[in-house]
Formats: sequence, C-alpha cells, structure tokens
Amino acid sequence: MTRVTLLAGGVGGAKMAEGFDALDDVELSVIGNIADDAAFHGLWVSPDIDTLTYSLAGRIDRAQGWGVADEAHRALDVLDELGNDTWMTLGDRDFGLHIYRTNALRQGQSRSEIAAHVAQVFGVKSQIILPTDDVVQTRVRVADGWLSFQEYFVREQCKPEVLELDFDGIQSARPTKAALTAISTADLIVVAPSNPLVSIDPILNIPGIRAALTATSAPKIAVSPLIDGKVVKGPADRMMTALGLRADALGVARHYGDLIDTMVIDNADAALVDPILALGMGAVCQHTLMKTIDDKTALASAILAECQ
Amino acid sequence: MTRVTLLAGGVGGAKMAEGFDALDDVELSVIGNIADDAAFHGLWVSPDIDTLTYSLAGRIDRAQGWGVADEAHRALDVLDELGNDTWMTLGDRDFGLHIYRTNALRQGQSRSEIAAHVAQVFGVKSQIILPTDDVVQTRVRVADGWLSFQEYFVREQCKPEVLELDFDGIQSARPTKAALTAISTADLIVVAPSNPLVSIDPILNIPGIRAALTATSAPKIAVSPLIDGKVVKGPADRMMTALGLRADALGVARHYGDLIDTMVIDNADAALVDPILALGMGAVCQHTLMKTIDDKTALASAILAECQ
Repeated sequence: MTRVTLLAGGVGGAKMAEGFDALDDVELSVIGNIADDAAFHGLWVSPDIDTLTYSLAGRIDRAQGWGVADEAHRALDVLDELGNDTWMTLGDRDFGLHIYRTNALRQGQSRSEIAAHVAQVFGVKSQIILPTDDVVQTRVRVADGWLSFQEYFVREQCKPEVLELDFDGIQSARPTKAALTAISTADLIVVAPSNPLVSIDPILNIPGIRAALTATSAPKIAVSPLIDGKVVKGPADRMMTALGLRADALGVARHYGDLIDTMVIDNADAALVDPILALGMGAVCQHTLMKTIDDKTALASAILAECQ
Repeated sequence: MTRVTLLAGGVGGAKMAEGFDALDDVELSVIGNIADDAAFHGLWVSPDIDTLTYSLAGRIDRAQGWGVADEAHRALDVLDELGNDTWMTLGDRDFGLHIYRTNALRQGQSRSEIAAHVAQVFGVKSQIILPTDDVVQTRVRVADGWLSFQEYFVREQCKPEVLELDFDGIQSARPTKAALTAISTADLIVVAPSNPLVSIDPILNIPGIRAALTATSAPKIAVSPLIDGKVVKGPADRMMTALGLRADALGVARHYGDLIDTMVIDNADAALVDPILALGMGAVCQHTLMKTIDDKTALASAILAECQ
C-alpha cells in the first residue's frame, strides 16, 4: 500500500485525484485549495474542495467537469429574480451542500470537519484534507483594481490581464494537523496538474506547509498542467505569461524549483526534458491529458512506477 | 375603492386574501402572522408570510395549499443525506427565497422591507405587511415540554395535546408603522378564517395592535375558521377544546369578543346566529368554504356588502 498525498486545485486536481483514488494499492490523501472559497448569498462556497468531493464521490457533472450531475437551478432562479448577482452558477443540490456547510460553520464546526463529514457521507474513499481551517482569499489585481478570485475567474471569465496576485490572510493562516501529517507520513507527494499560481501556491504558501514538504524524504513529483505551452482548462498559461513566467512545463518546473524532485510532462513536450534536467530535477514524459478514467489511472500508475 | 385590511394566518388567511385581492374595487392590505417563523438549516423561514405571498403571486402549489408550484427538493435531499433534520419540507424555489431573506437580514434589511420587496418582485398587487419587525415565536406546551410552533405543527403533526400557548418575545415587540397605518386608514377590518389562537392572537397581542383596532371606527368582521365545529385545515378545533374554549363559531366569537362587530359564519352554523347575537355582535351566514377562486371572491364580496 503506497500512501500518496496529492496537492490539488480544481478540475485538473480532481482528475488526478480520481486516478490515484481508483488504484487498489494506493491510500490517497488530497490536500485541496481553499483560497478560491467565497460567500455567495451569505453561503460559504468552496469550489475546489467541492469539485474534489463531487469527483471522488462520482457525483460530478462529467460534461462540464464541475458541479453535480442531475442538477437544476430553481433556487438560483429565485435569487436572480429577487435581484441578487447570480453569475456564479450554483445548482440546487450544490446549494444543499453550501447551506449545510454555512450552518455547520455557524455552529462552530471547522471547515476541515465539515469537508471530512461531507466526503464520508458522499462515499469518498480517499481523505480530503484542507491545508488550513483559516480563511485565505486569493485576490487578483487587474487594470480596474482588485477582484476576488471568483469575480476574476467566473464573473470576468479570466479576461482581464492579471497584474498581481495576493493571498489575503495567508500570513496568519495555520496549517491543519491533518495536512502536516499527510505530508510527513506520505510515501509519495504529488503536485497535481493544477494552476501553480492560484491553486498550488495558496497551499504551499500557508506557513508550515512548504517546510513540511522540504522536510520529508518522500519523492515529490509535479505534473505540468501545461501541454505544449497551453492549458487544458483555465487561465494558467496567460496568467504565467502576464506575471513574467514561461508558460510551459519548463516554466512550471522553474516555479516549483527545489521543492520537487521530478516533473512529469506531456509526451508533446519531450523537447523540454533536457532544460528541466538542467534544473537539477528529473523529467519524465507521459500522456498527461486526462479525458477518461483510464487516462487518469494510467497517469497515476505511471507516477507511482516512477518512484518504485 | 374600499380599503380592506385583513388579519391573516396561513392557508385560510391566504385564501381569504386571494378573494379580496381579486376584487377590482378593493385596495387590500394583509397583516400576516410572523410568530410561526423559524430557522431551518440556518435560514430564516416565514411560512405564513410566504404562503400569503405565493398565493397572491399565483405561485402557490394549489394541490397542497402551501409551497411553490413546479417545485423540487434537491437541496433538501442533500441536507437530509448530510444528517440534518428535514421534517420541514422546503423546496428548491422556496430555499431560494429563504436564502435571499436570510442574506438580506444579515445585511441589515428589516423583515418588512424584505417581505415587501419579495411581494413586489413576485407581482403581488396587495400590500403584505408584517405586524412587527421583531422576532415573536409561538411556543406550544405539550406533555413532553415546550415545542416551537413548527415542531408541534409539522414535526409532530399537531398530535400532542396542547396544554399552553406562549408567544415568546411578544411583550417587547413593537408594531410596524405600516401595520398601524393599515388599521387606522382601513374602511373595513377583516379577520380571516385562520386559527384564532396561533394565527390571529400573535398579531392581536403585539403591543399597540389591539389598541389600534379598538380605536378605529371601521367595521370589524371576523370569519369563523370553524364550520360545524370542525376546522378546514389545521388543529384549531382540537386546540380550542384543549384550552377550554368551545370549538365552534360561537367559541370563536366569544374569543374575539368586543374586538369585532360582526361574525361571518358558515350556512351550516345557522343555529349559532342567535347565541352570537346574544354576545352583542352581528352574525351573518355565508358559504365560507373556499375551494375555488369563485368561492373566495364570493365570500369577499359578501363581506364587503355587509358593511355598505
């Protein structure tokens, strides 16, 4: 049994999690990103954690990659009619979860306890772990000023150029014991093919997380979210370019630097193997585009094989 | 144009409101009951006000008399699965409204402002007025102790015998200016065929309301919710018996006493005309069972005719 701890953001992270979760000989812990969380209509929404949970529970809307299957939008229709901003698409089943979470928070439960309860009830086998129980909020500076992450990502559809990123609250955020334990006891650390800047960095930058990763002797493997310099979903490529990084697997490898031992890059990026090796880390080519469950498990198996 | 102010509880009150609302020569204000309000899953639910609003907006589920038409229960299913108590049936459209209300309350809006906004957006022509913006909570003492009204009414399905009623918070509740104005400027005051003890009393007992009713010279007409000693819906008959009142139109007349000028009772209760007249008030027989919109408008028209 290999204990794998996966650092994961939204859709790409959830796909990678599904790959490991489906392997019989893996005990998976996923540390998800909570810096995209936001309040909508007074309810606390945790998009990345929910995408992980819905994916591992087999409830995800496969067609869109997020949200719940068999969903409807009666509640949102009423909120829209009553004049609330409804650019964040929240379905009725999804609202059930956000109502539950918000009420449990008000009753004093921690975000971690709530996420663990939801995952357990929904039948998720793997552990879903929050990096912190404190509130950290990704903010994106664009020409017009600062936006919350969801304003940038959903409302503005990632169109404005990103001038600066900030993780509000991260300096005083405390890591959860579960996250530190998942890192220190792992046989293998994997960084999912998620946006390095807004999915992985808000995990890494929580005080104590990076040090725990540095301290463990377990191999640390990152999967590039960029294939041939393009992202599968989301703004990672444009965001990296805007912030002065190379928008390809080499840029991702440079960004993670000493923190990781090996980069897994796509077969399409074979030309980047040598420049990545020159950084002093390993570089392995694989088929990294995950469309089917077979793609996901094959990639997870290949990563496991790398360190055995 | 006759200005009618209706004091109304839940389903019976909403039916009477629909009758007046449909008349061209009536300007209707409905003062609804807020003492059945309760928090579910951290959301503030106002069942009587919502039944009024949904009825006057033509959105009510006609088959059951409450809730919204074209409703589904995806959010409640998730809350149930996650372990919350879900004996209070709340549909997804209904949740949209409760989410809106709770969020608006947290942002500092008054319950009155919220109810008025919802009614206006939903296309309600009449005024829906709250008797107070403070929290008043009907509690019901049964053999096992005190229950909230919804615990008694929905969870326990009115089965336990009622030993005592209490309106928590009513002593310090302040009447809304809108309610006092609706009473003082009305050409006619009507008490709907609602439960006198738990729908109408929590309105009447708000300090200032009863005095305003006494002060106005407008005719005050109450419609008995009991027909031949039986209630159309709800526990009014058993509750009146349990609390030592006569469970028929005469008992209702005695309960309202001096506050009203005339009782409208069902044709089936013609034998009670004389005993009611003996109380020093008027008594009029009508067809009071409201099944169709024609029943509702006919009863409203007959009440109007009484005082013209």
